[in-house]
Amino acid sequence: MPAFATNMRFKFPIVALTLEILTIILYAVFVVYDDGKPSHDHHNDHNKTSETSPVILYPMFQDVHVMIFIGFGFLMTFLKRYGFSSVGLNLLLAAFGLQWGLLLQNVWHLEDGKIKVNILKMINADFSTATVLISFGAVLGKTSPVQLLIMTLLEITTFAINEHIVVEMLKVSDIGASMTIHAFGAYFGLAVARMLYRPGLRNGHENDGSVYHSDLFAMIGTVYLWMFWPSFNSAIADPGMPQLTAIINTYFSLAACALSAYATSSLVEHKGKLDMVHIQNATLAGGVAVGTCANMSIGPFGAMIIGLLAGIISTVGFKFLTPILAANLGIQDTCGVHNLHGMPGILGGLAGIVAVALGKLEGTDPAMQAAGLASSLGFALVGGAITGLIMKLPFWGQPPDQNCFDDSIYWEVPEEEDESEESLAHGDHSKNKAEA
Amino acid sequence: MPAFATNMRFKFPIVALTLEILTIILYAVFVVYDDGKPSHDHHNDHNKTSETSPVILYPMFQDVHVMIFIGFGFLMTFLKRYGFSSVGLNLLLAAFGLQWGLLLQNVWHLEDGKIKVNILKMINADFSTATVLISFGAVLGKTSPVQLLIMTLLEITTFAINEHIVVEMLKVSDIGASMTIHAFGAYFGLAVARMLYRPGLRNGHENDGSVYHSDLFAMIGTVYLWMFWPSFNSAIADPGMPQLTAIINTYFSLAACALSAYATSSLVEHKGKLDMVHIQNATLAGGVAVGTCANMSIGPFGAMIIGLLAGIISTVGFKFLTPILAANLGIQDTCGVHNLHGMPGILGGLAGIVAVALGKLEGTDPAMQAAGLASSLGFALVGGAITGLIMKLPFWGQPPDQNCFDDSIYWEVPEEEDESEESLAHGDHSKNKAEA
Amino acid sequence: MPAFATNMRFKFPIVALTLEILTIILYAVFVVYDDGKPSHDHHNDHNKTSETSPVILYPMFQDVHVMIFIGFGFLMTFLKRYGFSSVGLNLLLAAFGLQWGLLLQNVWHLEDGKIKVNILKMINADFSTATVLISFGAVLGKTSPVQLLIMTLLEITTFAINEHIVVEMLKVSDIGASMTIHAFGAYFGLAVARMLYRPGLRNGHENDGSVYHSDLFAMIGTVYLWMFWPSFNSAIADPGMPQLTAIINTYFSLAACALSAYATSSLVEHKGKLDMVHIQNATLAGGVAVGTCANMSIGPFGAMIIGLLAGIISTVGFKFLTPILAANLGIQDTCGVHNLHGMPGILGGLAGIVAVALGKLEGTDPAMQAAGLASSLGFALVGGAITGLIMKLPFWGQPPDQNCFDDSIYWEVPEEEDESEESLAHGDHSKNKAEA
Repeated sequence: MPAFATNMRFKFPIVALTLEILTIILYAVFVVYDDGKPSHDHHNDHNKTSETSPVILYPMFQDVHVMIFIGFGFLMTFLKRYGFSSVGLNLLLAAFGLQWGLLLQNVWHLEDGKIKVNILKMINADFSTATVLISFGAVLGKTSPVQLLIMTLLEITTFAINEHIVVEMLKVSDIGASMTIHAFGAYFGLAVARMLYRPGLRNGHENDGSVYHSDLFAMIGTVYLWMFWPSFNSAIADPGMPQLTAIINTYFSLAACALSAYATSSLVEHKGKLDMVHIQNATLAGGVAVGTCANMSIGPFGAMIIGLLAGIISTVGFKFLTPILAANLGIQDTCGVHNLHGMPGILGGLAGIVAVALGKLEGTDPAMQAAGLASSLGFALVGGAITGLIMKLPFWGQPPDQNCFDDSIYWEVPEEEDESEESLAHGDHSKNKAEA
Repeated sequence: MPAFATNMRFKFPIVALTLEILTIILYAVFVVYDDGKPSHDHHNDHNKTSETSPVILYPMFQDVHVMIFIGFGFLMTFLKRYGFSSVGLNLLLAAFGLQWGLLLQNVWHLEDGKIKVNILKMINADFSTATVLISFGAVLGKTSPVQLLIMTLLEITTFAINEHIVVEMLKVSDIGASMTIHAFGAYFGLAVARMLYRPGLRNGHENDGSVYHSDLFAMIGTVYLWMFWPSFNSAIADPGMPQLTAIINTYFSLAACALSAYATSSLVEHKGKLDMVHIQNATLAGGVAVGTCANMSIGPFGAMIIGLLAGIISTVGFKFLTPILAANLGIQDTCGVHNLHGMPGILGGLAGIVAVALGKLEGTDPAMQAAGLASSLGFALVGGAITGLIMKLPFWGQPPDQNCFDDSIYWEVPEEEDESEESLAHGDHSKNKAEA
Repeated sequence: MPAFATNMRFKFPIVALTLEILTIILYAVFVVYDDGKPSHDHHNDHNKTSETSPVILYPMFQDVHVMIFIGFGFLMTFLKRYGFSSVGLNLLLAAFGLQWGLLLQNVWHLEDGKIKVNILKMINADFSTATVLISFGAVLGKTSPVQLLIMTLLEITTFAINEHIVVEMLKVSDIGASMTIHAFGAYFGLAVARMLYRPGLRNGHENDGSVYHSDLFAMIGTVYLWMFWPSFNSAIADPGMPQLTAIINTYFSLAACALSAYATSSLVEHKGKLDMVHIQNATLAGGVAVGTCANMSIGPFGAMIIGLLAGIISTVGFKFLTPILAANLGIQDTCGVHNLHGMPGILGGLAGIVAVALGKLEGTDPAMQAAGLASSLGFALVGGAITGLIMKLPFWGQPPDQNCFDDSIYWEVPEEEDESEESLAHGDHSKNKAEA
């Protein structure tokens, strides 16, 4: 089966090293340290904090960093045989994505012909990778590392264009990026997943599920995302009251969301039991949904209402909508990103329109907010569809159906403990670090 | 068995949503952002840091946040079949508790009729949940989610009253809350556990123990608590030297405590082996015990002596006292919170009395310190006993003895990996996220 | 077998408590809080930040703290039956090491006869433990807790002497400690491993390998080290641009290193598959290698080139060099610290010589840089050899070959889940926390 030439030995190293070396060359030409001195073509930069200390945002950056690498990485380890890929490829894609994102996000406004790196730009670079990691969740288990590197390249490029249009040109307020990251990443991923539709997985797959310990690993991701989401939504907010407001709104939205996600999970499940899929994901929907409004004075109770609704919508989506999307629309969404990032992202965009219409943030226009949401969805769907078509080309090493959701197709996987006695009889193949 | 109607389908969602909606209504009436402007009835607030930056305490807050949600949550995953409940219900209770705690802690001193939220108040709200999570450890595996929500409501209410009396009225110094959080939470939980005594568990329970991997998950909690305890004890200290002192004292107390906990564990165990129960818990007793004294100038070596003693007392308690409490007093303390929070909390209170008597902190009175300890223990025991009686009412879905320490009574639990081949033969019931 | 008297019951508690009590006495004599006031024999201290706030470095400290206790601790949990020791002894050694390190590092420049503790000194104390934890990786699974405490005592002493010579006397710049911590710790550990050479392990050991879940636990360590390495390399840099530069260089070096480590792993492995050993370790080599240069203006692309090379060298080392060292030189390096810390540390030292020769940091001398590298390697090899000989004395409870890489020789280990039904038939010996 030439379409399933999944041996990565040359195609993956060549693609990865080519991308990295190309990136280094571009950095040699364009990227310097931000020395804090104003440039000749300096433009208004509200978030410039280097007057005080160039590292004042560093704790916020590290919180976001943890969300990207631990949060997203471990959240996806819920699958029983796909933990290496979840946390490992998450690291790979984000490590490349942040380099690429920093270039693409700043190519629009060079200073003296250069991109001057500072902590704020590093936070934004980390943010750009979040779009890819959300889309990764939709296609988790069904794509090769090469396909995913291509998706990273194309998705961050599309993201940077849309973000420039929405934030810089339309002057849309989207501080926690409900629209430009969450809804964008989700619908981009769903469009890719639609293009890569696998009829062979219609009746499920033995490995498309969790085991007890994999669900606990996933909770590491969930809890870190839940805890640090206030940093995500406030990291690039203006210092002072706007940043404090973004922290408080996100804190309370998530707290209310946790209660409604648990309550709804018990309500819709067999015998009133809680479902780990809901707890791992829907408890976070409040962070997504309050993103656009986070720095607006909607009041703590306003944030809590948004969180409450997000938790309900997300849980109901996992229970009822995901199976419909898979069965009727051919959209196989492994992690249910539509429920965690898609619908709550749209809810966030709509809440932002309402809040702006009610005058909760000066200098914003509800029509522009709506245009920002439309733009994000449009770029996501079109960009995702084109990216999906490119990823479908038969030489990227996509796994055959029977090897989906299984690390062993791209990773050396050690023997299982309970098989090891048996395997010893046939010679132990387990990894030996000192002698291997 | 009507007493064991453990189906949560309606009672849990109704209780959770009712509490959340009630809370949101109270927030709509009472809670606003802290704009940093002084109110008319402004009172002296040493910790008010908003003159500088309203987010200056945010890194400290996030450390505490990690202790509450990762630290306490994963510490309790040591049980072999109770990890979902440990980390999952920890999230639920803390998410509700922080909302309730913020209201109850600040209802005593409204500003212009409002509670003005800032980072300091968020830290205190997180702190208030710690009492519940400590008590949760005592009853772990033996209570329903509804019972635990009721405990959260009542315990935080009791805590807020005692804290107001001890800190505001008696002017007791308890910066790291050895008395008002740790001893309080432990004895409250032990009183609840006494009320919920289960004779059927006198001879132990198959699931009341760990497996290899669950002990490793628990170490995630242990290590995070150990690392961030200096933040817990210093977060609300006065800026400058008092905060630095609290950090340093806690850092060295914990370091000395680790050594004495390891040494004592080896000394009391069969063949001198280390016991994971001791390592997971007793290494932290130094953080508890130095809490009251943390901001006092007891010297690094003073802190180390407190930590050394705490590690010994805690380990010896696990080995010898916990079985006695269970067998003779009917107090079944699942996590041994008496050894980690109870006795070290009292030790902290006593150390505080001595340090204050030696003049290690200006403006404090040893008699008042002693009164603070007595008040905390009194409110804990009485409040816990009453709460335990309410929790014992037969309609909260308490699990029967044979289902204790088992997630599957309240959670959808996936098939185990080693059973999956077998289960496939009978139809795979494993969770399928895309199709479920 | 008297050489294998592995019962720790008295020797371990006696050694641990003696060291701790001795340390407390020394602290009572020498260690006080840093009150921020200049002392009489005050010397130039660039990093003194107490003019602003005494806790300004605290978030950096906590990042380093997480690297030491979570990062190193969990990185070593990859072995299938050695997780308790990895994360548990890591905690023990670092807890003692930081106390000892703070004394030894500061005994050279007392202020008014005292060591004045502040956050900067706590960061340096944490750093000193990193050397021990690196060496621990080389001998992982083959040493007793008593042997490791002795190694901690001797290695930190040696480290403090070498650091004083290199940094204070030779005025070498090594901000991220590629030479003084990473190369030093690796070659010290390799020298110890050589002295403790075990011919009986030449053909490998059943437990010297990973299982699926242990590799995931190890990734917790990897990802935390990867994320927080910019803090490691910048924590003690001068405030302002030097610190920002160190953060940025490390961020990009690690990103490039991740790509090259993944690419090289796929290139050298059977069928192009990724190997978890490489991903867990070689992705971090960029942080090691950029350490010496981190605060030099080598440009983001310069940092990326260093990272790219480090990822390649490290992966190739794991694949080809480690087996040669074990087979031909008798150096059994359990975690492959030579590949993660040894060679990348030397690469870092060499890059520093080049960068200094190119004038990338004022006030530095390439000859002195080279002397600093030579000194670090010399002290490591000689110090490690002597320490190894002392550790080889037959009364420290070293495990026999067949019990290597197995927690159960020094820890109470619970029954495995899949054995538990069987074991119940013979009486359940599993740990019961309430009744034990």
